[in-house]
Amino acid sequence: MDGRKRQIEDVASTLFSERGYSATSVRDIARALDMQGGSLYAHIASKEDVLWNIVSRAAERFHAAVRPVANGTESATERLRGMARAHVRVITDDIEHATVFLHEWRFLGPERRAAIARQRDAYEAYFRAVIAEGMCNGEFRRADPKMAGLGILSGLNGIAQWYRPDGSLAPDAIADAFAALFLRGLCAPQPDETDETP
Amino acid sequence: MDGRKRQIEDVASTLFSERGYSATSVRDIARALDMQGGSLYAHIASKEDVLWNIVSRAAERFHAAVRPVANGTESATERLRGMARAHVRVITDDIEHATVFLHEWRFLGPERRAAIARQRDAYEAYFRAVIAEGMCNGEFRRADPKMAGLGILSGLNGIAQWYRPDGSLAPDAIADAFAALFLRGLCAPQPDETDETP
Repeated sequence: MDGRKRQIEDVASTLFSERGYSATSVRDIARALDMQGGSLYAHIASKEDVLWNIVSRAAERFHAAVRPVANGTESATERLRGMARAHVRVITDDIEHATVFLHEWRFLGPERRAAIARQRDAYEAYFRAVIAEGMCNGEFRRADPKMAGLGILSGLNGIAQWYRPDGSLAPDAIADAFAALFLRGLCAPQPDETDETP
Repeated sequence: MDGRKRQIEDVASTLFSERGYSATSVRDIARALDMQGGSLYAHIASKEDVLWNIVSRAAERFHAAVRPVANGTESATERLRGMARAHVRVITDDIEHATVFLHEWRFLGPERRAAIARQRDAYEAYFRAVIAEGMCNGEFRRADPKMAGLGILSGLNGIAQWYRPDGSLAPDAIADAFAALFLRGLCAPQPDETDETP
């Protein structure tokens, strides 16, 4: 990707994440770059194309970060913890791109929206698969892997709304705190929980 | 609230949640109500006023639903489960109002935005307080109550993005599945977890 294109996507990400895709015009993007609207069209075909580039590239980054961990050989517990770290790092590496991916993708045209919906489902499947595997091998309690996956991913995605790069917590520490919550739960272990005598 | 005002807020909630507050004009709201933009101003002072009414009323509904459970006399575990149910019911009772509350409140003017930020913090404090109490009395493991509260609320808020009233799961069932995730965690109890002998 040439430098100008990356610059356009960065500026568009800032505007889309601040005021939303629908409320941002190509002229707004051009103005933020000190360009004329007309000359911006030498680099982009349409506003939706810019959104598509931002969203599809972000989707690829999430897949590339999480897939190798999901397909690794560690225990389901360790893999899920690693996937949380990988997911949080993609969010915190570029909050604005991640915010556009999470909230503005629904403004894509029908075909592109469907493509992203498929990609999101495939991404959620990494989580469902590791959760289901952990349930089969006895690491995890029995539960609905789909609901558990949705709960975990929603919790992690919420980080995009409050994470500040200058805050006191590093991305890995945040991911580990969230992983502890959904792996071990809040409840302290009960003395009778593993007691098999009546 | 008179019927016309409620109608305006319902139509505005639909438009704000579909295309975003910034991309919706007063004329769009009037058109969806088969009114002239001018006659709409007999009922509302500004577009931001409509947003404020929707957001502040939704905030009140969350508080009214969760406060009595948080201040109840049950165990921290039971209260947290009840708070999850109450929170999810407010979301699923009116997904569009809840979506505007969750995603569009940041478009309020500075003073109103600050008022909602304070209300959100007070709301999160119900969760932090019950979590901290459960940690003190030994029901819960030691953890950061702020992070745990954020994880729980983000997970629950994510429900607004995928819940369908005609889906197979009732709001209470969804809330209970999520509560089980953050209360008990995914990991199966370990045999040595409560074993105090070396």
